[in-house]
Amino acid sequence: MSYERPNIQRMTGYSSGEQPNQPGIIKLNTNENPYPASAAVVAALQGLRVEDLRRYPQPLANEFRHVAAECHHLQVDNFIATNGGDELLRLVITTFVEPGGAIAIAEPSYSLYPVLAEIHGCDVVRIDLQDDWTMGADFAERLNASGASLAFVVNPHAPSGLLTPAASLRAIASTFKGVLVIDEAYVDFIDPTLRHDAVSLVRELDNVLILRTMSKGYSLAGLRFAYGIGAASLIAPMLYKTRDSYNTDVISQVLATAALRDRASAALGWEKVRVERARVAAALVALGFSCAPSQSNFLLARVPSGDSRFVNTEIMAREFYQRLKDSGILVRYFDQPRLRDKLRITIGTHDENTRLLQQLESYVRLT
Amino acid sequence: MSYERPNIQRMTGYSSGEQPNQPGIIKLNTNENPYPASAAVVAALQGLRVEDLRRYPQPLANEFRHVAAECHHLQVDNFIATNGGDELLRLVITTFVEPGGAIAIAEPSYSLYPVLAEIHGCDVVRIDLQDDWTMGADFAERLNASGASLAFVVNPHAPSGLLTPAASLRAIASTFKGVLVIDEAYVDFIDPTLRHDAVSLVRELDNVLILRTMSKGYSLAGLRFAYGIGAASLIAPMLYKTRDSYNTDVISQVLATAALRDRASAALGWEKVRVERARVAAALVALGFSCAPSQSNFLLARVPSGDSRFVNTEIMAREFYQRLKDSGILVRYFDQPRLRDKLRITIGTHDENTRLLQQLESYVRLT
Repeated sequence: MSYERPNIQRMTGYSSGEQPNQPGIIKLNTNENPYPASAAVVAALQGLRVEDLRRYPQPLANEFRHVAAECHHLQVDNFIATNGGDELLRLVITTFVEPGGAIAIAEPSYSLYPVLAEIHGCDVVRIDLQDDWTMGADFAERLNASGASLAFVVNPHAPSGLLTPAASLRAIASTFKGVLVIDEAYVDFIDPTLRHDAVSLVRELDNVLILRTMSKGYSLAGLRFAYGIGAASLIAPMLYKTRDSYNTDVISQVLATAALRDRASAALGWEKVRVERARVAAALVALGFSCAPSQSNFLLARVPSGDSRFVNTEIMAREFYQRLKDSGILVRYFDQPRLRDKLRITIGTHDENTRLLQQLESYVRLT
Repeated sequence: MSYERPNIQRMTGYSSGEQPNQPGIIKLNTNENPYPASAAVVAALQGLRVEDLRRYPQPLANEFRHVAAECHHLQVDNFIATNGGDELLRLVITTFVEPGGAIAIAEPSYSLYPVLAEIHGCDVVRIDLQDDWTMGADFAERLNASGASLAFVVNPHAPSGLLTPAASLRAIASTFKGVLVIDEAYVDFIDPTLRHDAVSLVRELDNVLILRTMSKGYSLAGLRFAYGIGAASLIAPMLYKTRDSYNTDVISQVLATAALRDRASAALGWEKVRVERARVAAALVALGFSCAPSQSNFLLARVPSGDSRFVNTEIMAREFYQRLKDSGILVRYFDQPRLRDKLRITIGTHDENTRLLQQLESYVRLT
């Protein structure tokens, strides 16, 4: 006998990128940082004692929240720490969306959002991005027309890497009558000369919630630690009501705090990623790929068209994905509209990227 | 403006026991293990490298699940690992209870259950335990009559410590038409000569889900790692659909696996707790308290009655709680029916327990 709720029985779970265990794999499929966390994090890990794990963690991760408040020039009440960004995404739905209600998402985007909506029993309104992956001038009006009480925007966008300026987000949030979640999982890789700053919106608007994670920029995907930034009125119900009572553990609190304090060290890696991003993008274009302009640590690369061996570029992209995999290089292929002719490639170390480009070059040359 | 759902706006969050930071506090209020985790866990912690955190964790915690399967003589499919027991409790509600439906709980019990129900928007049917904290012969019938699709039973019971035999649980689960969650957070402290075994019910019944945690028995409350044991059909929807996609982190997987492998070491601590439990219970009785027979790592002690200085024992229990706190000893006081005349006291080290008993003796002597 099945005891599942009908909506759970009907749904398919989230399918994450492959996480192989074998050494030697070049892993450019789940947007991890190619460089390890800083010496400050190493020292924090070495300083941990098993005795520190005997007792429950500080429930709110207050030390981390204080450091985050200093870092972002806001108050402690503007922050919630979560067990990875996934928890925060779930919490905003739990807290702000009625079962039977709706969320809105830009399409395409992070494939977890619709899964969370299915679990919650709410609808998903998909608003197609334009051909250049921008949101379009009527995006906010379409959000309001959708009846959604919550909207998710990834910025820089995944899977394209495109950056929407903060001024555009301000305009959307000012018009939208629900909560606008700006998922900034990849924010650390934005060119600092652009002076992008969406966090400042939190000071003006009580319906903006920003997601930050230690997974990408801080090389701590294995740690599961993220945080939300928003008006205190938006943060409080998640912090004091809907969050699991001890949602972050002692070790992740200590390591995430050390990492954020030492963000200057992490920033050295971000710059290296940007340099490599430019090199890889240029090389891909030289091979006939086209890439959306990325401010993230990945590139969405459309395979070269006009290859007579393939019926179309969709088959070619899948073939390239498979050939790369066979040669020990994992990239991401999305079997969904507008993405089937593209590969999403995480920026790795210089050597990893060179290996990737050599492989792709050999495939293109062979055609 | 408030964006919260009405049910979230109305509710009060979970109130956990105090987690003070000051050193020197004798902390007997949240049922932590008085002894640290084993040398195997120390070694596992020392073996971790920050580089191991750069990538996402194994999503299902498969290595842990394999060790758990060996430990409990079941299959890997019978296990799900979670970010503390709280996550598993939330997942069972998310997966098996419709919003607008109902859960059933034995009253009194863990105060988190009703909070999780409020978040989910379902009702709570409370079935009063009898005076001796047993469930009563008609418990299963009352569960069915309640219309609940899920029932929570803590065993050994919290806050009394009373153990319900596995045969009684089998009878309840066989009759109940919903999912029976047996929360075994404190199972490790049961006298092994009782040969209590509820896990075997999983082989016979597809509606039994057992919760185990590393927090208490394995001295890892700060780590947030627990697991569920159930029929594969019960585990699968939580494992593949409703669980956050990377719910447990790399470090907790490694440490929990080491701890479970080395359970023989942890068991030495469990025996010490049992010896102290008997000593503290006898001493409390000698002071005029009465204690429910506990198979857990805490005692629920009713304060002595007949003290002329206090209007009633409820005021006296609260006063004792406060005096202990003032002298640096934290115990738990529950301001709720049937518990206001009692203190829940976690079993600490020999010295901590002696300090507690000395304080209580001085209060009783003064009367």
